[in-house]
Amino acid sequence: MTDPVVIVGGDAAGLSAASKLSREDPDREVIVFERGSWVSYAHCGEPYFVKGEVDTLDDLLSLSPAAIDERGIDLRREHGVVGVDTDARTVAVEGPDGSFEQPYGDLVVATGARARTEPIAGSDLTGSFTIHGLDSAAAVRALLTPPATFAVEDLGGGDNLDREMVARYGAMEPPETAAIVGGGYVGVEMAEALDAWDVDVHLFQRSELPIPMFGEAVGEAVVEHLREQGVTLHLGTEVDQLLGEDGRVARVRCGDGTTVAADMAVVGVGVAPNVEIVEDTPVELGESGAIAVDEYGETTVENVYAAGDCAEDRHVVTGEQAWVPLGLTANRAGRAIGETLAGTPTETGGIAGTAVVKAFEEECGRTGILDADEARDAGFDPVSRTITAGSRSGYYPGNEDTTVTLVADRESGRLIGGSIVGRDRAAVRIDTVATALEGGLTVDEVERLDLAYAPPFSPVWDPILVAAKVLNGTLDG
Amino acid sequence: MTDPVVIVGGDAAGLSAASKLSREDPDREVIVFERGSWVSYAHCGEPYFVKGEVDTLDDLLSLSPAAIDERGIDLRREHGVVGVDTDARTVAVEGPDGSFEQPYGDLVVATGARARTEPIAGSDLTGSFTIHGLDSAAAVRALLTPPATFAVEDLGGGDNLDREMVARYGAMEPPETAAIVGGGYVGVEMAEALDAWDVDVHLFQRSELPIPMFGEAVGEAVVEHLREQGVTLHLGTEVDQLLGEDGRVARVRCGDGTTVAADMAVVGVGVAPNVEIVEDTPVELGESGAIAVDEYGETTVENVYAAGDCAEDRHVVTGEQAWVPLGLTANRAGRAIGETLAGTPTETGGIAGTAVVKAFEEECGRTGILDADEARDAGFDPVSRTITAGSRSGYYPGNEDTTVTLVADRESGRLIGGSIVGRDRAAVRIDTVATALEGGLTVDEVERLDLAYAPPFSPVWDPILVAAKVLNGTLDG
Repeated sequence: MTDPVVIVGGDAAGLSAASKLSREDPDREVIVFERGSWVSYAHCGEPYFVKGEVDTLDDLLSLSPAAIDERGIDLRREHGVVGVDTDARTVAVEGPDGSFEQPYGDLVVATGARARTEPIAGSDLTGSFTIHGLDSAAAVRALLTPPATFAVEDLGGGDNLDREMVARYGAMEPPETAAIVGGGYVGVEMAEALDAWDVDVHLFQRSELPIPMFGEAVGEAVVEHLREQGVTLHLGTEVDQLLGEDGRVARVRCGDGTTVAADMAVVGVGVAPNVEIVEDTPVELGESGAIAVDEYGETTVENVYAAGDCAEDRHVVTGEQAWVPLGLTANRAGRAIGETLAGTPTETGGIAGTAVVKAFEEECGRTGILDADEARDAGFDPVSRTITAGSRSGYYPGNEDTTVTLVADRESGRLIGGSIVGRDRAAVRIDTVATALEGGLTVDEVERLDLAYAPPFSPVWDPILVAAKVLNGTLDG
Repeated sequence: MTDPVVIVGGDAAGLSAASKLSREDPDREVIVFERGSWVSYAHCGEPYFVKGEVDTLDDLLSLSPAAIDERGIDLRREHGVVGVDTDARTVAVEGPDGSFEQPYGDLVVATGARARTEPIAGSDLTGSFTIHGLDSAAAVRALLTPPATFAVEDLGGGDNLDREMVARYGAMEPPETAAIVGGGYVGVEMAEALDAWDVDVHLFQRSELPIPMFGEAVGEAVVEHLREQGVTLHLGTEVDQLLGEDGRVARVRCGDGTTVAADMAVVGVGVAPNVEIVEDTPVELGESGAIAVDEYGETTVENVYAAGDCAEDRHVVTGEQAWVPLGLTANRAGRAIGETLAGTPTETGGIAGTAVVKAFEEECGRTGILDADEARDAGFDPVSRTITAGSRSGYYPGNEDTTVTLVADRESGRLIGGSIVGRDRAAVRIDTVATALEGGLTVDEVERLDLAYAPPFSPVWDPILVAAKVLNGTLDG
């Protein structure tokens, strides 16, 4: 009898693989080891749970335990995989009832990524949080809720929730001032969430602009908008330590020695792939430090696959491996590996680095390669133009400025990246650019796209067409 | 000295050509003959002017007379071109000061299209309108406005407006019941506009569903929504006559002899290309009845170009000529011809038949080929699937059902068309499909597009990805 498929990690990639495989090949035994108690939950919804727009933790669960059972998946929570022997084809597992070796026929590493805290000393103080896990999101919401109206039961989450820890935060007085350390996705989304609780928000960003992966034009628009919303920005400011009083966050210390008072801190200075379990194996990591895989998600070791935030993917613009840990990629790669293991070799699909984020009312999007150095490293000669145009016909109510940046390779004219920012349906428009990247379109072809026009939704020349027209004019010259 | 470039028609295509040419080659003489008094106005904004969301007619003018002057364009209003002699290279013009022959070096036919009224007897009654021109839009708004609050000056439009006619409508009592004959774009948009004035709206559509070019799924959603909004639908009902009392519309008579009372009527039963001026010339028409052109917009006669609603274009899916009279195409083709005439041969670009329309709160989009017969005629073996999925993460407020249809060719797997309907950012998402058509993507490639995901804007699997996944599953089988 074949040894089971062992999947390490019970979130998006792992459970997508398990679900697809169990549907396509119900006879194949599948075991999923998850070291924590939560499985298959929506990371990206955490800021909105903190804000209170999403009621309970249960709303963030994609698959109920019952649904997982129904699919015939043998899911073992609180089981950490601590080692892999790719010769013997076994994993070493530590569970509530002790340690054991589990043989595998195929192994899927879907261990995800973790929020980095090591750059910020004092991240372990009471009142310091990462937004990377439901317990921690629940703790932040508990702290924000006045004790008189807080009840841990209101948060949902059943037995998985660390109720004792959360209740402790629920008993504390809400903060007046919050420090957000890091102006990436989490930082910008948490600024909105904390502001909704009338907390005085300070956002610290090491570089000169927040969400630097979205490029300058988006970053500048977000700066202006965050300030309008009353967020205090500390740009070009490195935080090196959280300072405590009686074990609780009290101040933030910056690299230049100045300090800023804060009753709580959210640390969002990036994520790191969880690759420890393959570190002493022949499974190779890519340049990014995440696990290298081929187009089917298979690692450098036969029968060992990797998917999701711990793995690389092929970038559709460069054709090279890249690490862009985001939700869709994890789901899709997991699903493809499930299909492959069920007997239908299926490519995991490329990534374009498409991402969108809401910064209060500003909708921000990006895809492909925006950074000039990164473009040059990939062998392109980047030319970029930024334009601002209306989101609707100028005479139609609700028309909003929409700023688009497009980047092309000078010699081939090929579009290699783009960004967008605006308040009226800006984010989903980035999909047009992402699709053009997949199609390998030139700027000339993008300029002639037959995009939708009707006064309530778009001007005659969609902002993306305007940007293509201007960039194309540059390339012609 | 070269004879001037003569452009017939002063709207989107004609003035785009004139503007581009005068910018790129300021020394070339350009004359634009426009038979009416209005130039360069936004047709598509008329329903919103009638509704009152757009204040004045002036808001709908894209180029002011001053701006046209500034560009050095010799624009002659009230000058109708009544004939073309392609051998002598002259056009016969009838202007306010009599008739004359105008020699041309290059001729651009941009005569547009007209609303068809000949299928509906009685269309000339007082209280019957087409929404194809600013005078008629102004007349409808005048009629809807209670006489006590109406002032023709409030509508703007300066000297171009037929003030006498509009004032006559302004003095009439507003209608209680309106018949909209034809459920195309104009019909659906006018239903919303008239409803906003508390008129009891009856919409008559010959086929079983409105906006048939958007396919069944969209049509059904629109039917449901129009009924929710209180619009009375008469589907599968052909109107053959408007019946008058004292010269004013009083009833609508259907093909089966039944009649429905109505104080006013909007006739929107399609448009026809204005091709009369080339009818006795060697300039050939395509199968559609519009003017046939090559990829540069040149007709079958050298030095004679055609652009906009009177001309065909190359369809990006079939590669064949097709007639899809819409705003972006007109602007783009005009502009390309202007560039070509200035010495830089520029393709007009293909059309995908992308269109969007707002039906009250429903956003509808379509692109490519949806109709199975049309697909088969073009040599495809069409397979189609329709799905409904959320517009945002299920737990995020504002998530709305979004219905997507995708159509592919069975053998090649190539995507050939799609439609979408929903209330949350549905319309602009059709651009993703339009871009995939331009890129010639297969359904497999569409399924693997790296589209944007963030809870406020899209679920992990965007509705378009869900549709591609389901359709791809069918193709695999």
